Amino acid sequence: MNDRLPVIVFDVNETLSDMSVLGWSFEQLGAPAALADQWFARLLRDGFALAAAGDNADFAVLGRGNLHALFDRLDLSCPTAVAVETIMETLSGLGLHADVADGVKALHEAGHRLVTLSNGAATLAESMISAAGLRGYFDLVLSVAQAPAWKPAAAAYAYAASACAADPADLLLVAVHPWDVHGAARAGLRTAWLNRDGTSYPGHFIAPELTITRLTDLPRALVSR
Amino acid sequence: MNDRLPVIVFDVNETLSDMSVLGWSFEQLGAPAALADQWFARLLRDGFALAAAGDNADFAVLGRGNLHALFDRLDLSCPTAVAVETIMETLSGLGLHADVADGVKALHEAGHRLVTLSNGAATLAESMISAAGLRGYFDLVLSVAQAPAWKPAAAAYAYAASACAADPADLLLVAVHPWDVHGAARAGLRTAWLNRDGTSYPGHFIAPELTITRLTDLPRALVSR
Repeated sequence: MNDRLPVIVFDVNETLSDMSVLGWSFEQLGAPAALADQWFARLLRDGFALAAAGDNADFAVLGRGNLHALFDRLDLSCPTAVAVETIMETLSGLGLHADVADGVKALHEAGHRLVTLSNGAATLAESMISAAGLRGYFDLVLSVAQAPAWKPAAAAYAYAASACAADPADLLLVAVHPWDVHGAARAGLRTAWLNRDGTSYPGHFIAPELTITRLTDLPRALVSR
Repeated sequence: MNDRLPVIVFDVNETLSDMSVLGWSFEQLGAPAALADQWFARLLRDGFALAAAGDNADFAVLGRGNLHALFDRLDLSCPTAVAVETIMETLSGLGLHADVADGVKALHEAGHRLVTLSNGAATLAESMISAAGLRGYFDLVLSVAQAPAWKPAAAAYAYAASACAADPADLLLVAVHPWDVHGAARAGLRTAWLNRDGTSYPGHFIAPELTITRLTDLPRALVSR
């Protein structure tokens, strides 16, 4: 265990942003709401496949490509190209989960440096936290677009450590996705799993050091260690 | 272009096996048929994440883990553990697509060596092609369990080339999955995309050398090159 106050590295999609509105957007277009989850799983599947193959994909390109593939099979209320851009706009305008603002402020108050690290574009994260008035709490807003590979490849977390001028062991990743916790742990970071919906942690990924159900619980969880 | 008669490397899941029966199995358990696709996308997402992180996962472990995660949210007609094993049994007993037997025989007849390369267990592929009376047409039944990593990591295809005592350029991968075509092409193999359902090839993956809609068209497609 490392006693230094860790730099908190936030995942962005679903960890900070509330993606539940996407289901509603799919429905407005005449697609099943459940397709939103399937789209995001496929987007990640392709991004991870490309990372495993040695490539570093553009998140938005994979987003659009998979929307086209899913929408081409459906009879939507508008042309496919319009529907694709509608979803990409929804993705660009997502708000934060209800626990994020207070959690971010409490972690800042406790003296932690805060950064974000997304497989998506840094501009999306920038605009989302800026719109919520939280940009000033974050030292850096990072994207794997500047790294050699997507998370959960080790090189993505090493890039974040380097950008923070810190050892990987002085970083603590917070994410809702077990694959992100796994990759961070394997790259030598500390980890907290944000389990908002009370699911079980999959046994096939490295278990997190900490598990919290709300971001606002993280400062106390870190002190109790 | 390489003029030598290529060794044909078949992907297994969905390329040889007909997974459409899984939707029916999900329905029998009281789950939506569409969950079958979502399950398989999540299984691959986790396997590729682990490959990107430097791990080599067990296909069945990821299959069971993701079934548990999906079934825990639902009110099924039997206990979750029973439902999970029911789907895993369905997966173990899949039949071949209608075009596979004739395609395999025609490729053998044309003088090609035939092998399989699966992210799943070799035993599953063995029993499936044996049940169809086709085992004798295949030189090798390979799994990435014996390789350093899952497809589409380059090491998976290099393992197949080594097992065939052939150069990667003397292998031709046949797969329904664009991510597999991409990884194989990047690893120096020739590629054929088996596009049975008439979808578009995603622009974010390296395009295949050949596109066929039935396996029985592959011998002719190879001769026309």
